[in-house]
Amino acid sequence: MDTRFSTAIHILIMIAGDPNPIASEKIAESVGTNASYIRKITSLLRKNGIIASHQGVEGFRLLVKPDELSLSRVYSALYNTDEVHLFDIHQNPSDKCIVGRHILPVLSDVFKEVERRAEDEMRETTLFDCMKKMRVLIDN
Amino acid sequence: MDTRFSTAIHILIMIAGDPNPIASEKIAESVGTNASYIRKITSLLRKNGIIASHQGVEGFRLLVKPDELSLSRVYSALYNTDEVHLFDIHQNPSDKCIVGRHILPVLSDVFKEVERRAEDEMRETTLFDCMKKMRVLIDN
Repeated sequence: MDTRFSTAIHILIMIAGDPNPIASEKIAESVGTNASYIRKITSLLRKNGIIASHQGVEGFRLLVKPDELSLSRVYSALYNTDEVHLFDIHQNPSDKCIVGRHILPVLSDVFKEVERRAEDEMRETTLFDCMKKMRVLIDN
Repeated sequence: MDTRFSTAIHILIMIAGDPNPIASEKIAESVGTNASYIRKITSLLRKNGIIASHQGVEGFRLLVKPDELSLSRVYSALYNTDEVHLFDIHQNPSDKCIVGRHILPVLSDVFKEVERRAEDEMRETTLFDCMKKMRVLIDN
């Protein structure tokens, strides 16, 4: 399980919704993990200019407006790439067979197109969209 | 590494391109794996009505035309679902925090939309598209 992405969105919704700085311990309690895991993620978000530390107190504030912060940018901050990986490709096809000789670029090309569609959606979805969805749930 | 999907596409291109039945051993050699792994995958493709065994000789033939065989159907035959899984979600958010209490359906909803875009592309891409891409590579 790699929950960095879902955890980062959780953290960002908390930071966006609270005008006061929130300590990593409090975030960790809400996420259901430990504070050092939260710090690992906030450190990546900070390096990418998505959040900044508060002066003097522990906690963070958003540097990007929620409706301008795409999930694609969040993903990219965490994984150092905005290329989503969906499918593994077998790496030892035989050169002796015409299909084996040409399969790798075909698969890589086809899979890239699928992944690009996922990336498009992530680019079009913002933190604000997530907050709106949560608002609907809270209000109901 | 889970290379079932890429291996299945490799197998289907071989079957589609050869009028003669091809034994699992020959396919395995081209893929760069063992025949029992190939049989595991062809068995799933067979159960789903994508390929059928040849009578009397070992080997398979396509039951679906390449331009009607979507990658989504192939995926679904292999994984028994056409829902692509992209991101894991942390499973123990705290009920005591308003964000923790509502985060799971928000994340699941947002991730579903991303995954749906990937699935759309897989539904629109056929085995024939893969074969065309390979043809271009072979001809160049």
